[in-house]
Amino acid sequence: MTVLALDIGASKFSAGRVHAGRRVREVRQVDVPRESVWEVCRALLLEVAGDETVTAVGIGSAGPVDVPSGVTAPLNMPEWRSGFPIVAKVQELFPTAAIRFAIDGACLALAEHHVGALRGVPNALAMTVSSGIGGGIIVDGKVALGRTGNAGHVGHIVVPGWDTPCACGGVGCVEAIASGMSSVRWARAQGWDGNTGAELAKAAHIGDPIALAALERAGTALGQAIASAAALLDIDMVVIGGGFAQSGDPLWTPLRAAAAKHARLEFLHGLRVVQSRITNGATLVGAGVLAAGHATADVMD
Amino acid sequence: MTVLALDIGASKFSAGRVHAGRRVREVRQVDVPRESVWEVCRALLLEVAGDETVTAVGIGSAGPVDVPSGVTAPLNMPEWRSGFPIVAKVQELFPTAAIRFAIDGACLALAEHHVGALRGVPNALAMTVSSGIGGGIIVDGKVALGRTGNAGHVGHIVVPGWDTPCACGGVGCVEAIASGMSSVRWARAQGWDGNTGAELAKAAHIGDPIALAALERAGTALGQAIASAAALLDIDMVVIGGGFAQSGDPLWTPLRAAAAKHARLEFLHGLRVVQSRITNGATLVGAGVLAAGHATADVMD
Repeated sequence: MTVLALDIGASKFSAGRVHAGRRVREVRQVDVPRESVWEVCRALLLEVAGDETVTAVGIGSAGPVDVPSGVTAPLNMPEWRSGFPIVAKVQELFPTAAIRFAIDGACLALAEHHVGALRGVPNALAMTVSSGIGGGIIVDGKVALGRTGNAGHVGHIVVPGWDTPCACGGVGCVEAIASGMSSVRWARAQGWDGNTGAELAKAAHIGDPIALAALERAGTALGQAIASAAALLDIDMVVIGGGFAQSGDPLWTPLRAAAAKHARLEFLHGLRVVQSRITNGATLVGAGVLAAGHATADVMD
Repeated sequence: MTVLALDIGASKFSAGRVHAGRRVREVRQVDVPRESVWEVCRALLLEVAGDETVTAVGIGSAGPVDVPSGVTAPLNMPEWRSGFPIVAKVQELFPTAAIRFAIDGACLALAEHHVGALRGVPNALAMTVSSGIGGGIIVDGKVALGRTGNAGHVGHIVVPGWDTPCACGGVGCVEAIASGMSSVRWARAQGWDGNTGAELAKAAHIGDPIALAALERAGTALGQAIASAAALLDIDMVVIGGGFAQSGDPLWTPLRAAAAKHARLEFLHGLRVVQSRITNGATLVGAGVLAAGHATADVMD
């Protein structure tokens, strides 16, 4: 008997076996193809399952999702973007298994709450800052789902100072200002000639003024969004993972300064913003936690 | 045997008896004095209790509060502002009663969830827009408390376009832009010569250009803050009460426009923002719901 975890990323599927309710082992990864997406996903799950009877599968997916109907619709996956019934399909594959499904941000929060910086923290925000910005929230000891399973879309908090259009159709979302991709776009418009968030961080560390300005802009916007979320949720802990969050002081110093400037209510005086120590596969870890039955209704341990 | 509800407002105490788990009757109100605040509160509670045995008391208080320690510290009440142990004091008064305590915003959300616009809505935001801006949030069917009982501080979401200092010590909070008091202050700085939010609304309705601009500014900021909260919480319903929310189309038209402009994620397409129908004493109603044992852990009915 075995329990599986599946991470549906925008460009990669990862799956593994869940051990001891929280460790995911024997992980396999494949690129998401342009077509026959389900066939590739199905083969991956069967490979990881091997000859074992699968008793549960935890699925974390790039959003948006519709959890009540078990449908995922990842923006960057053309074949599935109008909606794919992932829960029903995985259930067909493993008819006797319990299938548990959540957005990647909720899985991130589950992972941090069970094995990361948010252990024992009943009110908190987990974020990922990479090419985009996502997250999950823990409210009164439980990962919040929201109406359709999309709670935690911290990337679409509106921040001051910018009217940049966002991919969501809105204007001034923190993702449109502070993600790795948005920061690179802004830096290039100022004359910088690199291509990735990692290059931008390197350039900032050797003192490139445009790169430094880009990271200051991103950090400030992140700190403002965090202050807004903290006031609304009454949290004292925020953990940030993802590639662009590895940019060091040029990002983190303005981030912490902006959070401190705006989060001034007395109950926020102890607000900590820390870097995630889960360096790899946080969504898969969270899907494992989900699969193991630490459902969102019972994540305190 | 009777159940009591107490509303600790910045300027008034209200108390009443709770009937049928949700109706508060025989309501008495007194002004909060400068000194001997507890003595006045105590006399009010005893008057409302009469000869009955009190089995439970629900207390809703202006914030900030510290729910885990049962302390209230209303900003605008000098004698209590550094912290008053309200739960212990009420418990002394009624030794065998169950004492339940929450911030006014959480009571507002409880009231709307039980008898108002949020009945049957498991993910939502309840706001009050009057001299200040407060609120409470419902997450996955329960009123969120947060770490110290202060969840729902929607008035301190940061909004774009303004760098007005806020009473909290921060900058650009929606309360500093869009409350009745902030709007009056802004209008007066532009040359308008009225004094209250109600006068400002009247002036706007007869076409005063400064009053119209003040309400457009307030409505836009409110719509932006609502969009940020909606993305984070995955809600489809926001209800707004409070005196300044009665300002009609000059406030509501820009409010709805800004919410629609910024809340563009697919799961937010059905977002409704409605005016509260609880015209009087929403905090007291919520304190009654709290007292009657529909605790925040079980508010679905």
